[in-house]
Amino acid sequence: MRTGGVLNILGRLLLVLSLFLLTPIPFSLYYHDGMVQTFLTCSLLGALLGAVLAAVFMPEKDLGYRDGFAVVVFSWLGLAFLGALPFYFSGVMNSFVDSFFESMSGFTTTGSTILAQVEVLPPSVLFWRSLIHWLGGMGIIVLTLAILPLLGIGGMQLFQAEMPGPTKDRLAPRIQDTARILWSVYVLFTLVEILLLLLGGIGFFDAVCHAFATLATGGFSTHNASVGQFNSIYIEAVIIVFMFLAGINFSLHYQGLRGRWSAYWQNEEFRFYLGLTGIAILIIVVMNFLYNTYGNIGENIRTATFQVVSILTTTGFGTADFDQWPPICKILLVILMFVGGCAGSTGGGIKHVRILLFFKYARLQLRTLIHPHAVGTIKLGKVKVPKDVMISILGFFALYIGVFLFASLVVTGLGVDIVTGTTAVVATLNNIGPGLHRVGPVLNYGDLPGMAKVVLIFCMLAGRLELYTVAVLLTPDFWKMARKPVLRWHANNKNNGLR
Amino acid sequence: MRTGGVLNILGRLLLVLSLFLLTPIPFSLYYHDGMVQTFLTCSLLGALLGAVLAAVFMPEKDLGYRDGFAVVVFSWLGLAFLGALPFYFSGVMNSFVDSFFESMSGFTTTGSTILAQVEVLPPSVLFWRSLIHWLGGMGIIVLTLAILPLLGIGGMQLFQAEMPGPTKDRLAPRIQDTARILWSVYVLFTLVEILLLLLGGIGFFDAVCHAFATLATGGFSTHNASVGQFNSIYIEAVIIVFMFLAGINFSLHYQGLRGRWSAYWQNEEFRFYLGLTGIAILIIVVMNFLYNTYGNIGENIRTATFQVVSILTTTGFGTADFDQWPPICKILLVILMFVGGCAGSTGGGIKHVRILLFFKYARLQLRTLIHPHAVGTIKLGKVKVPKDVMISILGFFALYIGVFLFASLVVTGLGVDIVTGTTAVVATLNNIGPGLHRVGPVLNYGDLPGMAKVVLIFCMLAGRLELYTVAVLLTPDFWKMARKPVLRWHANNKNNGLR
Repeated sequence: MRTGGVLNILGRLLLVLSLFLLTPIPFSLYYHDGMVQTFLTCSLLGALLGAVLAAVFMPEKDLGYRDGFAVVVFSWLGLAFLGALPFYFSGVMNSFVDSFFESMSGFTTTGSTILAQVEVLPPSVLFWRSLIHWLGGMGIIVLTLAILPLLGIGGMQLFQAEMPGPTKDRLAPRIQDTARILWSVYVLFTLVEILLLLLGGIGFFDAVCHAFATLATGGFSTHNASVGQFNSIYIEAVIIVFMFLAGINFSLHYQGLRGRWSAYWQNEEFRFYLGLTGIAILIIVVMNFLYNTYGNIGENIRTATFQVVSILTTTGFGTADFDQWPPICKILLVILMFVGGCAGSTGGGIKHVRILLFFKYARLQLRTLIHPHAVGTIKLGKVKVPKDVMISILGFFALYIGVFLFASLVVTGLGVDIVTGTTAVVATLNNIGPGLHRVGPVLNYGDLPGMAKVVLIFCMLAGRLELYTVAVLLTPDFWKMARKPVLRWHANNKNNGLR
Repeated sequence: MRTGGVLNILGRLLLVLSLFLLTPIPFSLYYHDGMVQTFLTCSLLGALLGAVLAAVFMPEKDLGYRDGFAVVVFSWLGLAFLGALPFYFSGVMNSFVDSFFESMSGFTTTGSTILAQVEVLPPSVLFWRSLIHWLGGMGIIVLTLAILPLLGIGGMQLFQAEMPGPTKDRLAPRIQDTARILWSVYVLFTLVEILLLLLGGIGFFDAVCHAFATLATGGFSTHNASVGQFNSIYIEAVIIVFMFLAGINFSLHYQGLRGRWSAYWQNEEFRFYLGLTGIAILIIVVMNFLYNTYGNIGENIRTATFQVVSILTTTGFGTADFDQWPPICKILLVILMFVGGCAGSTGGGIKHVRILLFFKYARLQLRTLIHPHAVGTIKLGKVKVPKDVMISILGFFALYIGVFLFASLVVTGLGVDIVTGTTAVVATLNNIGPGLHRVGPVLNYGDLPGMAKVVLIFCMLAGRLELYTVAVLLTPDFWKMARKPVLRWHANNKNNGLR
């Protein structure tokens, strides 16, 4: 690993984030919430830290693909650290672990919160909470469509963005091109949603914050009752549509925006996503009807649709306390949490395409057992899935379940009850937000033991970065290859010597 | 599929079972429990049914390996049906679904019971309950070491018994040879355990019934308090040792008995099994110590050891109500339920070897991510694991989790609460016995809705037969190949015509 090059990139990212730390200031001034000094301080600290890292360590032009692991993990950790400072320094939270939890929950677009009441928070802090979702979402799109395919993680090589532009071997140019295109789609969608929410009359501040959280499939709201607060079919409909869009592969949106609408329907994962969403809504409507959870069918359908799309896309907004639903609905929602969004979306979870490929694999396996000499292949759309990619995907499932079980074991080991402990892990590992029981939709993560919060922070990060990225950094093998960082003054001295 | 040949085999198996249906009669006579007529009737019915099937359908010499799927599934279903009759006709149970549940729980060596009280049952019926465990265990050993490897299910081809004797292509001779050897080990162990239990002074009836349930890793006891009833360290120790032995690959025992003791230690799966058992006991002892569950450390160790071995081997005997343990212990036990025994043992679950191979896979995957050009292979002992087998094993995991989730969904959909519903599925799918909450160690499955029992019966069967065996029969493809059965009179007529 080229430690110096990695730290240099981290420094530059911190510099960028320190600029974003200035954006809540207008809100603070407008609402007179007295947070100007807090954000200025945090921004300065971030700029200082970033500048030091960027100044001390030499950038390296030829970062290898292995360094990608370190860049990704350290970026998320470093940005979440800097993002936690406003929560801590504003006095909103007394513990740094809580602040870091909230910040990581933001950057990983999870949406699990420590806070029992959000409406009492200074508006500028609420804005920051939503903004880090949005920035996290930007990071994720580029990560899954440009970086992970190159690293070859968990079958992600299948989901490489079909993008124009130069496809060089070197990481940087390709990533930059892809990022620019996808981010323009992301920004466009955000602007359209803000506009539509404004038309619903919810005010600029709420519109911006909810649009940020929707596109990132994050889930932080500015209200204690989440989206339920607005009690408006129009607002819910807009958010449902944009949550659903945010759960789709962004490279499909790019093609759609260029007029190739057929790209959506030709994409097998999209069809699967659409079908699964429909079936899940249907089951929940029927079960809530049988159990008479809601007074009338209209309210039933409206609530079920919102909750299913919110959970399946791993957003985690709520308009109902699904912890009060019949057991089958709760289990179904927990299962949907594992499914998550499509690959290349901002959604978390295992991803639809992996579930789809597993079904294809199971069908092929059964056929092979019946016709042992038949030769079968697994295809995704028109592309044949290589055997190694299939192993990678099936292994990803097993690892995912393994991490889930291990984390559940540790969290319940800290004295958390079984339903709370396991669903807290599910909700963070899959970057959803709320779980069941003591971490249900109307409750929060604040009362969990500190160590449990640390484990859940790890789950958010590991889940968001597709497990392997984090796992690789935990192997001694990876660190054996670390090279001594090249310091700038050292490099300059050398240059002087050579001249 | 050669339907006739399959039904002919089923007929012959029913004939054999109808003989076993006579064995409870001596107990009935000795205890004057008035069940002689019941067992005579059931035996006659079984003999009649078996004779008709065996008489009507021609045996087929060249049963293909595909017919193996049908033979295995229909045998378990047919035998469980006949085995259910004594429960129903004796008046012990009012519903046939309950009787079939109890019988399937016996033959699949699960040990989940419908009965709240077992001590009130006629002793001959209790004996029958234990006997079907033992017969089920016999079936499983042959299934996993002789039949499944030939069918190539879920990586089972790795675990083929290393047996002497002719290895012909045809199924029957090879299976018969393997069966004879393994059954002699099974019978020997049963006799030794009966002897050791008798030395502990628990009486002939209890000794036989508990030895049957131990070797089969079944779990039905003749007492409401299960093995806890005896309150004897000696008895518990004997049962712990034999549960542990029953969880080991029986072909290792065969080698051990021939003097090759080193075979145990050379077997990687055995070492893993030993290690995991030790670590699980340690964690539970420490956690119960920290939570002060037990008064003294001796009782703590004794109870933890019994429960861990009982659950890990999927036996399900109890000496403590682990539903009262701290959450981490409960979760750990549920995780151990999924692990199960070794391949080729009578234990259920995913099997140690698959878990072990998954860990090896994950390590290799991480190494490949770091050194992309390194060539890595996965080895089990000294044998290289082919890529197809690895896909098969990883796919098995995913399918297992899929079945677990789907069954949990249906069971909770019938109104069962989440902890009860999910752990009932875990306990039956892995052939353990007790789950948590309303199906915890001191409670039973009697109060569940009838449809939930049907789903759990399916889980027991599917789990016991390594999923794919049952899944194959659920595909339309399989039935398309079914050939019209050859009836005896038809065949005879043809023969006459030819002569």
